[in-house]
Amino acid sequence: MVLLSAGCRSRAILLFSLLVIIALFNGSAVEARIRRYKWEVKYEYKSPDCFKKLAITINGQTPGPTIRAQQNDTIIVELTNSLLTENVAIHWHGIRQIGTPWFDGTEGVTQCPILPGTTFKYEFVVDRPGTYLYHAHYGMQREAGLYGSIIVGLPEGQSEPFSYDYDRNIILNDWYHKSTYEQATGLSAIPFQWVGEPQSLLIHGRGKFNCSALTTPSLDPGVCNATNPECSPFRLIVVPGKTYRLRVSSLTALSALSFQIEGHNMTVVEADGHYVEPFVVQNLFIYSGETYSVLVKADQDPTRNYWITSNVVSRERKTPAGLANFVYYPNHPSRSPPTTPPIPPAWNNTAPRIAQSKAIKALQGFIHTPPQLSDRVIVLLNTQNEINGRRHWN
Amino acid sequence: MVLLSAGCRSRAILLFSLLVIIALFNGSAVEARIRRYKWEVKYEYKSPDCFKKLAITINGQTPGPTIRAQQNDTIIVELTNSLLTENVAIHWHGIRQIGTPWFDGTEGVTQCPILPGTTFKYEFVVDRPGTYLYHAHYGMQREAGLYGSIIVGLPEGQSEPFSYDYDRNIILNDWYHKSTYEQATGLSAIPFQWVGEPQSLLIHGRGKFNCSALTTPSLDPGVCNATNPECSPFRLIVVPGKTYRLRVSSLTALSALSFQIEGHNMTVVEADGHYVEPFVVQNLFIYSGETYSVLVKADQDPTRNYWITSNVVSRERKTPAGLANFVYYPNHPSRSPPTTPPIPPAWNNTAPRIAQSKAIKALQGFIHTPPQLSDRVIVLLNTQNEINGRRHWN
Repeated sequence: MVLLSAGCRSRAILLFSLLVIIALFNGSAVEARIRRYKWEVKYEYKSPDCFKKLAITINGQTPGPTIRAQQNDTIIVELTNSLLTENVAIHWHGIRQIGTPWFDGTEGVTQCPILPGTTFKYEFVVDRPGTYLYHAHYGMQREAGLYGSIIVGLPEGQSEPFSYDYDRNIILNDWYHKSTYEQATGLSAIPFQWVGEPQSLLIHGRGKFNCSALTTPSLDPGVCNATNPECSPFRLIVVPGKTYRLRVSSLTALSALSFQIEGHNMTVVEADGHYVEPFVVQNLFIYSGETYSVLVKADQDPTRNYWITSNVVSRERKTPAGLANFVYYPNHPSRSPPTTPPIPPAWNNTAPRIAQSKAIKALQGFIHTPPQLSDRVIVLLNTQNEINGRRHWN
Repeated sequence: MVLLSAGCRSRAILLFSLLVIIALFNGSAVEARIRRYKWEVKYEYKSPDCFKKLAITINGQTPGPTIRAQQNDTIIVELTNSLLTENVAIHWHGIRQIGTPWFDGTEGVTQCPILPGTTFKYEFVVDRPGTYLYHAHYGMQREAGLYGSIIVGLPEGQSEPFSYDYDRNIILNDWYHKSTYEQATGLSAIPFQWVGEPQSLLIHGRGKFNCSALTTPSLDPGVCNATNPECSPFRLIVVPGKTYRLRVSSLTALSALSFQIEGHNMTVVEADGHYVEPFVVQNLFIYSGETYSVLVKADQDPTRNYWITSNVVSRERKTPAGLANFVYYPNHPSRSPPTTPPIPPAWNNTAPRIAQSKAIKALQGFIHTPPQLSDRVIVLLNTQNEINGRRHWN
């Protein structure tokens, strides 16, 4: 229409339109892209720790696909719920949803649940660089495997306040063999039935349950298969001499964890999407919902591989260590380390955990001090009442 | 307000109001009552055949509570969905829903699903006497135990075209140990994974699985307990010499059944809510969704009890017989019959089943002949297409 009109005013409009188009093109091509995902959420049999059970997958995967974007990109996730009878909702953990609170994914708070057979479109901006998570926010679906990572990089041309050669990602989890329906039925029963300790600790969706620990008969002969390739350990392949930014996050149901790479120091540089003053740890303590970036240099004996371990802390340890393989290229990735896995800190030794908490300080130059004066004060009142003979907190 | 007014017109209103009140009172007290039910639907651990698994219950029961009403009563069911993440809908099987098609309970067709945490009110008239059913009509929730009976009697003062002393009710079912999620995941997988034969046949919600048939290890030591009172057999207690109207219905997932009461003839008098010309059977063949009334006289040796059996027909028999106890009062109800359970007809013997089908004829005086001329013709077209290499019927 603009091209068909004539006169000075029309030419001005034409020029302005072209500028807008150029600006938009620049924006979408370089500075703020739209990242589109189509996800199908459904139940599938999975054996993440060699024990076969139903898991909730996204496009066949658990953990789900990693969302990778750059700061200020728009993420569009078209989620189709194929769970047959169950609703779903996804929370984008750590994303501020500025201007889009209705896409926060907390069922019953910011949205109605997504019904089976329907498709819902989440659309939001990732406005800060860093390591984030997504997970189901409905019933215990997160514990059934519906979770994944969101990795937001800087816009092109900008660089992080630390350097590394490669960027890698690991999500930690704990894993129960009872279905989440069974767990939820017990937890909501009167009297309350505790779920107990998890059967396995998963490192990026893989663990190893000892099938011979099954003692009571069941009907399904193939329920536990130690040779199932789905439960071969996770392998992080590194090139000798290179430095890795390893993003480590946890979405456990119950467990606080100690994460370790045998013989390698880790330099913490990011916590929950914020740059921190670098500090060095041998064990990274991580709680559910947290994310860290650590720098790891592949500076040890390159002729062998090393253990990556995940262990329970703060509860007496009844679940075996989660184990993965830190593989020095070109060693064979299935070659086990020649050592026994490193001994984790005592479960009840709180000193190193407190030390880690105290070491976390915002990086100089990236400190966002809160305003000196509040313009509004909100007082939150927690109540504690006896209802039907049971104590409820609100 | 009416009582405070004066004058002839007001008195006329008063009289009319009183007449309306009397009419309403008569109607609600005698001819057409309102029957109110409050149901909470939730998951609970149940051991209907001694094997513990999650079942969907109504007010703690599976089968759910029996709805008992008289013709033209209004049934109001306030259903609260406490399934946590799953929706629900209940279909009232055999109820015509004249004027209330939106309460037919077929999710996705006549209603949106009932969301977790919400309450939905079904309200409909039972306009015909007879034996009907209700069951979940969403996913495989019916197979998880969400079903029950609707028994509609005649209005007071009217009598059935047959006589009996007592009215009793039995629902038959088949039962799988895998969760319905697991079954549904296999059935909707590519390639298709068949659910196999049921582990047990239930008679009014009770069966007896042979716990020693479990061969492969599982984690849960109490999963199968033959002494659990939940799986003690169903008992039908009869008084010698009396005649029982026994309403027998089936809501199996897979199985066609033969139902038998050892040593007792059954006279079929009702089928699917319609009176039929009486005919006598030793085995009642019954398919999923069917209901029958049979008359049974307690005319055998009253010093012993008798077997009630349910057996698979039309598929090779791989599931043990369902067994219950036909108890002659005052024998001890837990006393087993001194005999072995009667041998059912061969699974592939179709002759007696065809004979039963042919014997079913509407009772003289209760024949509703269809109109001679149609006022509208609807032609249904079924299609059969290859979609993604698989055959689909529509």
